[in-house]
Amino acid sequence: MKKIMNRADDTVSQLLNSIAYAYDDKLKRIPQTGIIVSQKMAENKVAVISGGGTGHEPAHSGYVGEGMLSASINGPIFIPPAVNEIVQAIELADQGQGVLLVVKNFEADVANFLAAEELATKQGHDVDHVIVNDDCSIEKSNFKKRRRGVAGTVYVHKILTAAAGEGKSLDELVTLGDEVVASMNTLGVALSPGTIPGTSQTQFSIGENEISFGIGIHGEAGYRVEPLESSEQLANELINKLKTHYNWKRGMKLAILVNGLGATPLMELHVFANDVRRLLMLEEVEVSFKKVGNYMTSIDMAGVSLTFLELKEEQWLTYLNTPVSTYGW
Amino acid sequence: MKKIMNRADDTVSQLLNSIAYAYDDKLKRIPQTGIIVSQKMAENKVAVISGGGTGHEPAHSGYVGEGMLSASINGPIFIPPAVNEIVQAIELADQGQGVLLVVKNFEADVANFLAAEELATKQGHDVDHVIVNDDCSIEKSNFKKRRRGVAGTVYVHKILTAAAGEGKSLDELVTLGDEVVASMNTLGVALSPGTIPGTSQTQFSIGENEISFGIGIHGEAGYRVEPLESSEQLANELINKLKTHYNWKRGMKLAILVNGLGATPLMELHVFANDVRRLLMLEEVEVSFKKVGNYMTSIDMAGVSLTFLELKEEQWLTYLNTPVSTYGW
Repeated sequence: MKKIMNRADDTVSQLLNSIAYAYDDKLKRIPQTGIIVSQKMAENKVAVISGGGTGHEPAHSGYVGEGMLSASINGPIFIPPAVNEIVQAIELADQGQGVLLVVKNFEADVANFLAAEELATKQGHDVDHVIVNDDCSIEKSNFKKRRRGVAGTVYVHKILTAAAGEGKSLDELVTLGDEVVASMNTLGVALSPGTIPGTSQTQFSIGENEISFGIGIHGEAGYRVEPLESSEQLANELINKLKTHYNWKRGMKLAILVNGLGATPLMELHVFANDVRRLLMLEEVEVSFKKVGNYMTSIDMAGVSLTFLELKEEQWLTYLNTPVSTYGW
Repeated sequence: MKKIMNRADDTVSQLLNSIAYAYDDKLKRIPQTGIIVSQKMAENKVAVISGGGTGHEPAHSGYVGEGMLSASINGPIFIPPAVNEIVQAIELADQGQGVLLVVKNFEADVANFLAAEELATKQGHDVDHVIVNDDCSIEKSNFKKRRRGVAGTVYVHKILTAAAGEGKSLDELVTLGDEVVASMNTLGVALSPGTIPGTSQTQFSIGENEISFGIGIHGEAGYRVEPLESSEQLANELINKLKTHYNWKRGMKLAILVNGLGATPLMELHVFANDVRRLLMLEEVEVSFKKVGNYMTSIDMAGVSLTFLELKEEQWLTYLNTPVSTYGW
């Protein structure tokens, strides 16, 4: 696989250096670490931080900045950051009102973030966490739900940081975060797998006219391969699957996210979003907020994910709409 | 080539409907046309509009909105909009101070936009144009410069709209636009060609470890194929080629744009931008403004272009930095 790269080992450091350079009015890289911090942290507010492996750009550094995350901790490609770096980011972000960790539900991510929470708590920081598990796909082998953390994480960032900016306490933010996560579901499909720099293998294989349902953002294979008929048919299938997770009814209010996985051009994301728009209009649900673009990618995977968030509180929509200064939102 | 699409014929209309939907707080599609207009047009100012074929998303609708373009006119994929639609957009945009057309230097684009200018002028509108020709690649057959309009067009949009917002006249904007264009050069490379919906042919072929220099944004083949050694070597080669178009000297001020062509993930764009950063630091030039991302794409082409704009006036930097409300900038 051709890539514009140098030594694969240096990729993450070069990526973070460029991000700090391109957005030097907003962001700063803590040297020799995977930590990107906002140059403006709100005083006297709970700091919200997040992170995970790299390869999901613009996540998570694209959501760091005024009005949004105080810091992101970026690990190797698809590998969560080390515990000591998460602790260091907690120390940097804490403005005296505590620190909230937003963690995607992958075993290794949860382990490292919770270990860091424990260490930082011992050091006297007030730390808590919200675990995002919006993926509603299933395991191929046992049909259990996977509930990994995927694209919906971006909406959790937005809502929790806006609420923190309003002065909510750490406890209130955890409650809010858990409510938002419980109202959110995402399902993704891949047209072609991504490739990790320095490796030549692709992560799974899909036939020429097939798509894989329920892929993960680290290149995890999906649970079923189907022919790709049309955007409309795909939108219909994803909506029908997502619906089953709700007490679906006319007039319900949704925030939706049409997320590209890295190599799919905006043209296709919009054709798909147009089908989602039409089908949801027929369902007579109210789409109060929407985004279409690349928000949580999987390097150069081609594909799309669809996220529904039921807006159970009017305030959640206000939080989604507050202005921020970040490059990814 | 697998695509998330419906009937190829409907693609452009579906794309524009989704854009108008996704950004319904900012943009509006004029029904049955390729025209996207801003919901807020500055009164008593020259209106700046642009357009071309679709397939370059987020160009050009991503640069329509408060503080930037008043409208974009979007043709079929890689085909300029019809003359009558350009005239219609001029009528819609004109706030009494005239309309400036920003046109990319492709024969068919220039022909249609200038024909529309002539017709609208006859109807009583005050219309003029700036033709962007930042591409500094050469023809393979005769080594003549091509000077097509490519990614740098986005910086022309930004500078001219900020200047129009300051109250500059149509004549002053044309003079400014010509000066900016004369100070700007872009060179792009492809790793793999894009594919047009509804066709199965790719536009040119490149070997497994090769890149093509000087490709166009409509899938025009480049002038030379070379092996892809590394990001650093590529950055070095592009900088050296761009340098020859300037009276290059220490301390000169540049705006740079690292632009992805559609299918190249942000990770690679940033690795490349990091090399550009390092090499320009060694050159002791001052990079006063930079952007890294997908600004002028070629559907799903993989590759990158590098644009240099010499900031001959301090004011140009101010214009680049004025805040706008558009989804692409």
